[in-house]
Amino acid sequence: MPSARAILLISCPDRPGIIARVSGLLYSLDCNIIDSDQHTDDEDGHFFWRILFESRSRAAAAVIAELNAALPTLFTDMALHWELFDPAYRERIVIMVSKLHHCMMDLLSRHHSGELDAEVAAVISNHPDLAQLVRPFGIPFYVIPVTRDNKPRAEGELIERLQALRCDTLVLARYMQILSGDFLRAWHKPVINIHHSFLPAFVGARPYKQAHDRGVKLIGATAHYVTEELDAGPIIAQATTPVTHRDTVAELTRKGKDLEVVVLATAVRAHLQKRVLSHRNRTIVFE
Amino acid sequence: MPSARAILLISCPDRPGIIARVSGLLYSLDCNIIDSDQHTDDEDGHFFWRILFESRSRAAAAVIAELNAALPTLFTDMALHWELFDPAYRERIVIMVSKLHHCMMDLLSRHHSGELDAEVAAVISNHPDLAQLVRPFGIPFYVIPVTRDNKPRAEGELIERLQALRCDTLVLARYMQILSGDFLRAWHKPVINIHHSFLPAFVGARPYKQAHDRGVKLIGATAHYVTEELDAGPIIAQATTPVTHRDTVAELTRKGKDLEVVVLATAVRAHLQKRVLSHRNRTIVFE
Amino acid sequence: MPSARAILLISCPDRPGIIARVSGLLYSLDCNIIDSDQHTDDEDGHFFWRILFESRSRAAAAVIAELNAALPTLFTDMALHWELFDPAYRERIVIMVSKLHHCMMDLLSRHHSGELDAEVAAVISNHPDLAQLVRPFGIPFYVIPVTRDNKPRAEGELIERLQALRCDTLVLARYMQILSGDFLRAWHKPVINIHHSFLPAFVGARPYKQAHDRGVKLIGATAHYVTEELDAGPIIAQATTPVTHRDTVAELTRKGKDLEVVVLATAVRAHLQKRVLSHRNRTIVFE
Amino acid sequence: MPSARAILLISCPDRPGIIARVSGLLYSLDCNIIDSDQHTDDEDGHFFWRILFESRSRAAAAVIAELNAALPTLFTDMALHWELFDPAYRERIVIMVSKLHHCMMDLLSRHHSGELDAEVAAVISNHPDLAQLVRPFGIPFYVIPVTRDNKPRAEGELIERLQALRCDTLVLARYMQILSGDFLRAWHKPVINIHHSFLPAFVGARPYKQAHDRGVKLIGATAHYVTEELDAGPIIAQATTPVTHRDTVAELTRKGKDLEVVVLATAVRAHLQKRVLSHRNRTIVFE
Repeated sequence: MPSARAILLISCPDRPGIIARVSGLLYSLDCNIIDSDQHTDDEDGHFFWRILFESRSRAAAAVIAELNAALPTLFTDMALHWELFDPAYRERIVIMVSKLHHCMMDLLSRHHSGELDAEVAAVISNHPDLAQLVRPFGIPFYVIPVTRDNKPRAEGELIERLQALRCDTLVLARYMQILSGDFLRAWHKPVINIHHSFLPAFVGARPYKQAHDRGVKLIGATAHYVTEELDAGPIIAQATTPVTHRDTVAELTRKGKDLEVVVLATAVRAHLQKRVLSHRNRTIVFE
Repeated sequence: MPSARAILLISCPDRPGIIARVSGLLYSLDCNIIDSDQHTDDEDGHFFWRILFESRSRAAAAVIAELNAALPTLFTDMALHWELFDPAYRERIVIMVSKLHHCMMDLLSRHHSGELDAEVAAVISNHPDLAQLVRPFGIPFYVIPVTRDNKPRAEGELIERLQALRCDTLVLARYMQILSGDFLRAWHKPVINIHHSFLPAFVGARPYKQAHDRGVKLIGATAHYVTEELDAGPIIAQATTPVTHRDTVAELTRKGKDLEVVVLATAVRAHLQKRVLSHRNRTIVFE
Repeated sequence: MPSARAILLISCPDRPGIIARVSGLLYSLDCNIIDSDQHTDDEDGHFFWRILFESRSRAAAAVIAELNAALPTLFTDMALHWELFDPAYRERIVIMVSKLHHCMMDLLSRHHSGELDAEVAAVISNHPDLAQLVRPFGIPFYVIPVTRDNKPRAEGELIERLQALRCDTLVLARYMQILSGDFLRAWHKPVINIHHSFLPAFVGARPYKQAHDRGVKLIGATAHYVTEELDAGPIIAQATTPVTHRDTVAELTRKGKDLEVVVLATAVRAHLQKRVLSHRNRTIVFE
Repeated sequence: MPSARAILLISCPDRPGIIARVSGLLYSLDCNIIDSDQHTDDEDGHFFWRILFESRSRAAAAVIAELNAALPTLFTDMALHWELFDPAYRERIVIMVSKLHHCMMDLLSRHHSGELDAEVAAVISNHPDLAQLVRPFGIPFYVIPVTRDNKPRAEGELIERLQALRCDTLVLARYMQILSGDFLRAWHKPVINIHHSFLPAFVGARPYKQAHDRGVKLIGATAHYVTEELDAGPIIAQATTPVTHRDTVAELTRKGKDLEVVVLATAVRAHLQKRVLSHRNRTIVFE
């Protein structure tokens, strides 16, 4: 029997009866709720709900179709925003890198051990250096060079490539180019970036140098959705690790790599499991 | 208007329709769910649910009475286990100490700033040493000495005292006596203890000495419900902190105190907010 | 016999032979090195050394006098900067607070248990609210109100009070007034502050509100020496703790208090043990 | 010019003058101390010292020879134990694995980026599964199957292989076989293991299952030197990460892998930089 599980994400202004009506609908469709996590924003009263449920009699696709038909009729006085996902569908992600391989290798290694709920459709780089490391994983590696002069053309080529690869989510695994606002507007699918500082501290270039100069006693890493404003998009995951006066910029860089790897993997995993919702430039990350 | 909020904890074997029926009942009683957290045990399929809800028209006490009447009729084929709490009721806790004051002072300090959702009914010690530190908080301090010979009598006196104080939860804040099985069976209300190690490592006496001898690179603290088997009850909260070869047993003890304080406060707070359920010697701690 | 231990801090440009000559001098004075920690700045080659040593035949004061006479003669071609401390001398600290008591209570509680290597000479506040909590510790409590109009006069009164108290180090334990540049220049002894964010993120007012608005997944606390530029002095200690979308500003504030307490205590302790050296707006914190 | 840096590790009973005499000797040989870290055991007064120094006029090999000649003459009344290392010599390590690749891939990835101060001489496994992942790194992969019946023969083959590879340190990167006492006695070079629990909790098989059954709120990982008693050798590095009631054994296993990777890399790195000394089944790990 095909998968009978599905995920329902609901986002709307709070009002009485949402849980009762939606869970009643699911029950009437012979579905059992396996996991339910709900949150209401304390400032504007917005309501968020993630439900993992299982049909007891039909395939996920059939239940999803029924729900898509029934949900608009539940509330006549407000717009219910919802998304339905078949967890059996594996999202297609593309990893972008430059010359540093640690985040890419970690994601490929997790993919290889079946830990990542996604297909890695390709690795794309602005440099050819990492081709050899990708090869044993059997994943295509493309080079799209970026120079000061060819950026619009390179981004155009990137979009075409992503479309040909049917990419769902783009993961910047220490990709050292800034994607333009034009690209982001044209692409408009999720882009996850790893920034090597505890944002909002040390925005921009050379954050470990900045951290060293300020004499901080912790360094951090931040995974966030990319928006037009540099390093200012909704934060998905963060972590820090202690450092001391003995740590040079090179040592901070080395220690930071371990953070970047774990923080990016945490964010990608939460995103792929549909546990992340964005609202007013912040994220709700269900457990 | 009196408080209209209440907490409902449900625990039962999983089956379809629990969320639909219970949320439907709440909706029919004009209640709005503010926060809902649900968990199903992956091994035995037991279902746990914590709901914070608000009546839109009546006081909490009235709604609680109605729910107590209605919930038994929801399922005819299984025993639903539930508890209802009025968050406006402040539990009465008693803090037990010996000679070390750090955990006690922290709880009293939090109580003083309104951070603890409870009344501290008294501090009870087997030594008179800490009386002076308790005085400015305006909380009664009782001494019940315990010797090798008088233990049953002392525990009898303790039970009488706790009953006179209408104590709901007993908090052992580095109380250095072991409560007997006879006491626990007679008392049968929650007892929370802070153990100064990362259990199950270093059960029993002098855990920092044990940790030093083993040469660990982290020390820990564990808050747990007390059961008859020493240091083996359900764990509510744990934390660790790094140590090095430079740390003597005295240094481990000093560093550990900071952990104990935070871990005990975390556990007491979760317990008082009805976020902790015990199941098969483990806890579910809702966020 | 009086204490025979002393601490020697050395700071100078690096050159061959410093360790050989100084340790040779100590040996010739019949002193044994108990703990030695050395660091050389990777950027400007500055040399830092902390030595805890013990005289085998004389009191600390005598050895300190001999060293003060001999050290200038060791190097003729460079200026050796050194400081000598008798660890038996207990620094006199003054704690400044406003209305929040958590950091103050923690320091007083540590002082009470003998954990702080200092005398708490007084607590000074711009509000009378915390007087009662200080009383059982037997420590003087002074109120120096600060308004928009009286600030220079209030700071003058503060300096007089600190001098009368023979204060060595001032600890701002959530003191909500900014000390002026005039005060700092007049006072010129160490001032340690706890800032309730992971600096340099969220400088200035209401950092927990700033953190909430940015949607960070960790909050932090920073203890630093106070300099004229707000929140920009040398950092002594920092820590972070995870937060989620469920945490309101009030929850961040509550969680942050636990961090502030530990970070401030860590910094004060390191400072009192002469383990902190400042260099180019950063600190060396020997373990 | 060849490398002029060397590392000197000293371990002996404490007595006055060690630092003065050794640093005087280094100075007389025209060497400058770059980094010096010293520790004296608080229980038995044993003295440990790690010195990184630089010759100002000769190659490391020449200075090491001179020191090996001079050090025995420094003290006539006690046995000074010392070791001298040329940091330019790259140790040869062999990585042993079974079927899980995460620790191996991490070490190979670090090696590839020049972060590991060692040559990876080979990967040896009791299964052929990981051969393909090792290939792009250009490192030999050997299979030595182990069955219940052939263990002594397999271990004999392993020793021969290690000798042929001129292996200095053996790293068990989730190698699921227990090395016998016979092997360890015959091999007598360092063996570093990663154990997937916070030792001494959960010694032996299936630690994540044990952790789940006990209901802990943190899981850990421990890197230690292998001794004959299972999971009881000197601990080099440990770390923990929070878990909740939602985490199944599979989730604990997944989360734990991230810990194992970092803890093993930390331990291997410290070991290769000669920052680890063992004493009475504990380690001194200099920073």
